[in-house]
Amino acid sequence: MTYCVGVLVKKGIVLASDSRTNAGVDNFAKFCKMTVFERPGDRVIVLLSSGGLAATQAIVSVLKQQLKPDDGSPNLWSARTMFDVARVISDATRQVERRDAAHAEASHVFNASFIFGGQIKGERPRLFRTYAETNFIEAEPGTPFLQTGETKYGKPILDRVITQDTNLPDATKCVLVSFDSTMRSNLSVGMPIDLFCYETDSFSARCQRRFDDGDPYFATLSKEWSEGVRSVFTRLPALTW
Amino acid sequence: MTYCVGVLVKKGIVLASDSRTNAGVDNFAKFCKMTVFERPGDRVIVLLSSGGLAATQAIVSVLKQQLKPDDGSPNLWSARTMFDVARVISDATRQVERRDAAHAEASHVFNASFIFGGQIKGERPRLFRTYAETNFIEAEPGTPFLQTGETKYGKPILDRVITQDTNLPDATKCVLVSFDSTMRSNLSVGMPIDLFCYETDSFSARCQRRFDDGDPYFATLSKEWSEGVRSVFTRLPALTW
Repeated sequence: MTYCVGVLVKKGIVLASDSRTNAGVDNFAKFCKMTVFERPGDRVIVLLSSGGLAATQAIVSVLKQQLKPDDGSPNLWSARTMFDVARVISDATRQVERRDAAHAEASHVFNASFIFGGQIKGERPRLFRTYAETNFIEAEPGTPFLQTGETKYGKPILDRVITQDTNLPDATKCVLVSFDSTMRSNLSVGMPIDLFCYETDSFSARCQRRFDDGDPYFATLSKEWSEGVRSVFTRLPALTW
Repeated sequence: MTYCVGVLVKKGIVLASDSRTNAGVDNFAKFCKMTVFERPGDRVIVLLSSGGLAATQAIVSVLKQQLKPDDGSPNLWSARTMFDVARVISDATRQVERRDAAHAEASHVFNASFIFGGQIKGERPRLFRTYAETNFIEAEPGTPFLQTGETKYGKPILDRVITQDTNLPDATKCVLVSFDSTMRSNLSVGMPIDLFCYETDSFSARCQRRFDDGDPYFATLSKEWSEGVRSVFTRLPALTW
C-alpha cells in the first residue's frame, strides 16, 4: 500500500508520501515516492507516486528523460501551465502502459497514479491527481486536498482542519497527523515520510524534509496527539441510561 | 454501506449498528440492523446484520422461526454455548444461501455477515463475527472489538481507547465517537444508531437505546469531540524548518 496527500491552500501546497512498497506481505522495501522538479524563479513541480513501483519509476524516468535538451517532446519545462503538466504526466503514463501492459500477465493490472502540485510563473499554485485510467482531476476550494492509497484512516483530521484559508504550518502539521493515524492502523504504510512544503510565489523547493523512524519532531507530534485525543475522550460526557 | 461494531470488555459487551441501507446512491432507506434475543436470567444474544438486506432479513427470520416450540432443529434457545450460537447462525446463513444463490443473477453475489455477542448462563460473555463465507471468528483480549461494513474511519478511536479493561461507559462512549467519525466521512452510513450495552452476568437486555437525528446526547458528544480534537490539534507544536 501507499499513502500520499496533497493539500492546496491559498498560502501554498503541502505534499507528503510514505516510503513503503511491498510485493506481498513477505516482501517489504523502502522507496522514495516523491520527485521534485525545480527551475528556481520559474517553476516547482512535485510528484507523488502510487501504484506498481515498476510502472511509476518508469513514468518518472520518462518525465526526466524528456527534459534533456535534445528531446523536443512536450515536457515539464516546456509546459506553460500546470494543466499542461497534467497532460505531460498523463501522456508519459500512457506511453509506459502501452509498452508494458501487453507483456504483463492478465492478473497483473497496470496501475500507476500520481498526485502532483506546484506553481509555474504566471499562474497560482495548483494541485492535481491522475487516476489509473490516466485521466485527472484538480483540487479546488471545495475540495482542497487529494489523497491516494490508504486514504481512509487519515481523512477525518484533514476533513476537520483543512480549508483553503488554513496556514502552511497548520496544513503541514495536519498532514503529519494524518500520516500518524494511517501508519497506526495500516502496516503497509510506513516511515520514512517525505514532506514538501511550497510557499505561494516562492518558486523555490527549499522546504523539504524526510522523517525517519524515531524523528524527534514526529515522535513528539504523535505522542502529544495521542495523549490529547485520549484526554478529550475522557472528558466527554458519559451516556445516562 | 453499513457500520456495525461489537466491543468485548471484562465488564460486558457494547454493540451498535447504523440503519442505512441502499441499493445504489439513489435508493436509500432505513432498516434496523440489530436483533435482540433474550431469555431473562438465562441468555442474551444480540445480532448485528451487514450485507444484502434480503439475505440478512431472511436469515434473521429463519433464526426466529426455529424458536417456535414445534421446531426441533438446533436453535438460539437450545444452544449450550455462544460457539453453538455461532454455528446456528452460520447454518441459517448457509440455508438461505442455498435457497437464493442459484436464482440470483451472476452479478449479484450472496453477501451476509453478522456480528453477534451475548452471554449464556454458565459461560462468560463472548463476541463473534461471521464472514460472507459463513465461517466465523471470536474476539479475544488481543482484539477486543470487531467491525463490519465501513470500518476504517471509525477504527482509530477504538484502537486508541479499547482494551479488555475499559469500563462499559467508556466503551459505550467510544463506540458512539467511532460512529460519529464514520458518518462524517461516509454518507452511506447513517442515523439512527441502535446501541446495546450488556453488563456481564446480568442476563438482561435492559440497556438499549436508539439515537435518532438530533439526539441531544449524540449531538453534544459530536460537538465536544470535534471541538476538543481541533483544540488538541491547535496546541501541537509547529514544525520548524
